Amino acid sequence: MKINQNFSINYTYDILFTRELFAPSNPLLNDVITKNGSDKAIKIAFVIDKGLNDCQPELISKIENYVSKQEKINMACPPLIVIGGEETKNSTEEFVKVLSIVNDAKIDRHAFVVAIGGGAVLDMVGFASAIAHRGIRHIRIPTTVLSQNDSGVGVKNGINYFGKKNFLGNFAPPFAVINDLTFLTTLDERDWRSGMSEAIKVALIKNQEFFLWLEKNAIALSNRDLDAMEKLVFDCAQLHTDHISNSNDPFEMGSSRPLDFGHWAAHKLEQLTKFEVKHGEAVAIGIALDIAYAMHAGFLDTPTTDRILKLLSDLGFSLFHPLLLDPTGTKVNPELIKGLEEFREHLGGELTITMVEKIGEKFDVHEMNSEWIEKAVFTLVEKKEMYAY
Amino acid sequence: MKINQNFSINYTYDILFTRELFAPSNPLLNDVITKNGSDKAIKIAFVIDKGLNDCQPELISKIENYVSKQEKINMACPPLIVIGGEETKNSTEEFVKVLSIVNDAKIDRHAFVVAIGGGAVLDMVGFASAIAHRGIRHIRIPTTVLSQNDSGVGVKNGINYFGKKNFLGNFAPPFAVINDLTFLTTLDERDWRSGMSEAIKVALIKNQEFFLWLEKNAIALSNRDLDAMEKLVFDCAQLHTDHISNSNDPFEMGSSRPLDFGHWAAHKLEQLTKFEVKHGEAVAIGIALDIAYAMHAGFLDTPTTDRILKLLSDLGFSLFHPLLLDPTGTKVNPELIKGLEEFREHLGGELTITMVEKIGEKFDVHEMNSEWIEKAVFTLVEKKEMYAY
Repeated sequence: MKINQNFSINYTYDILFTRELFAPSNPLLNDVITKNGSDKAIKIAFVIDKGLNDCQPELISKIENYVSKQEKINMACPPLIVIGGEETKNSTEEFVKVLSIVNDAKIDRHAFVVAIGGGAVLDMVGFASAIAHRGIRHIRIPTTVLSQNDSGVGVKNGINYFGKKNFLGNFAPPFAVINDLTFLTTLDERDWRSGMSEAIKVALIKNQEFFLWLEKNAIALSNRDLDAMEKLVFDCAQLHTDHISNSNDPFEMGSSRPLDFGHWAAHKLEQLTKFEVKHGEAVAIGIALDIAYAMHAGFLDTPTTDRILKLLSDLGFSLFHPLLLDPTGTKVNPELIKGLEEFREHLGGELTITMVEKIGEKFDVHEMNSEWIEKAVFTLVEKKEMYAY
Repeated sequence: MKINQNFSINYTYDILFTRELFAPSNPLLNDVITKNGSDKAIKIAFVIDKGLNDCQPELISKIENYVSKQEKINMACPPLIVIGGEETKNSTEEFVKVLSIVNDAKIDRHAFVVAIGGGAVLDMVGFASAIAHRGIRHIRIPTTVLSQNDSGVGVKNGINYFGKKNFLGNFAPPFAVINDLTFLTTLDERDWRSGMSEAIKVALIKNQEFFLWLEKNAIALSNRDLDAMEKLVFDCAQLHTDHISNSNDPFEMGSSRPLDFGHWAAHKLEQLTKFEVKHGEAVAIGIALDIAYAMHAGFLDTPTTDRILKLLSDLGFSLFHPLLLDPTGTKVNPELIKGLEEFREHLGGELTITMVEKIGEKFDVHEMNSEWIEKAVFTLVEKKEMYAY
């Protein structure tokens, strides 16, 4: 005796590109919020990354002015400023602040929470929005390279718990994502650069042509050419979203997770450095490590390995961090190796690590040899000297 | 310039009926857990409702014995006992205990959390499972009439927060639901009876035939006939799951929520009585109130109204609670009326209340007249005398 339940849910959202989102003449945000129509004015609550607000102190008044000019949207409450960066995910403090405005301002499942900031803030606010009243409409406005081209356009959210990255979270597609390129102009050097590692990642596993474009435009990108960056963000976001929808596994029920190429070591390095190394910087080192590993394992030839490491270096990334080695500096850090098991545990099931065999082509391995990991780390020590700048 | 993201997720799970689930010869649980195959033994963590464990002190050893006899499944940790009833959802204490075993026993996205208990425990454990590592496989084993026929077979989970029912939660279909009818034999009178209100509800809005069957079998059901109860649970669960899959809105993005017929007043009454009135009992009163309202509004004729109230009463439900009136007992309790706005807020959008115009046929209204609510309350005062027992 049994009953089978079976249904499908269609998820659809747009990733919209604009500049000067809160200029009074820009209709985009108003159009997105009111697209389903409503008799009454629609309530919105803004949550803003403190780092962004410090750089752009006029932002709140621009937002308030923008909303006051629209007929069909209303501020539910004054914008909430939350701490930015990984700290926003490390305790439940900022998270509960977001839940509190939902409660206090009576934000319901037809109202909107709009998050403006870097990837960590978007992850945290996205998670709060996804579980308050079982899910409130949520718009992401990513303001860093990393969040505009990668984390902000995807379907994951979360906070850290028990000291573990993204221990709590879920898969919850946003209502919309709006990439305003002008936010990138006030980024500091590290944030401008660090998001580009995800573009290299997605090029390596998906698209040779994009890799060639990155090689050609490395100098323009380093020199903060906004048009080059717009192309990088758009193409990277497109490859990322195509992967999600074409993977047959958007909510990652299986063990394979190619978009996490280079991430097992990156996650561990962020943890070991107490997030002093930024995610994008850690991903660059993680990519470098797995590329060097692929060379030692015989998956990649030496010229291709060098070419990839050179691109990372040309874009300004360090390829090495001292914590890849133990305190004596003569052996691989045993803590780093533990990152493999933690990565497996978070994914669940069998250990599955994405490897690259040609630029733009990936495959999966199910174990990593610690001897080759050690060799890969020492390759990075050598290359660090070669590309020192 | 925009990118459109678009994908669908198919959700499928079985609601399986059995008796004596943990008898060594019953293959069901083992078959469900191992159905996807695995080279290694699969980890399971059990979370058990304290109320059930108190009634069935041999349960844990039966479970341990059952699991020890299976080749491909392993206990991840000793079973966790959690407080049952609404208390389990009222603070984050029990919730964090569930998250802790996931962390401590390294339960990953391919391992299982199995919850055994009443609806509140299933809601709480289901929510913890849905957000730890962005979702762990979760099996629900409901042990009350209410959870076997209604809450346990659906897609919602949650805990209370800010003093509000289900303020935190999400939509997360379980891996499977297993209804073991033998669990119902140790229920106390109130729990045996109270779950039947959801069966009356779903009959009223969906299926006249089921209503007629309930009328015919009211005495057998009251007398704890297990075969009659099995039929009630199966048909109610079937109507409930059919509604979810045929509604075009399984995750309730719209404002209409017919399965919440009778629930606006029920939620408020649970809150006003500090959950001393059980959910099923409150739903019976909520149904009675909305049926009496429908009569005063001219939607339902008096004989049909009486027939519905009589069935509720025959199954042993009270139709009235003193907190429907204010302290003077002469007017409707103004707190009750506030329940309408709270209900609207939790659903979001426009107030949408399901009404019945014939047995088995529903429609929506978007306002409720407080004069008719008052009349309906006083109708219940009269009927309470009529059906006093």
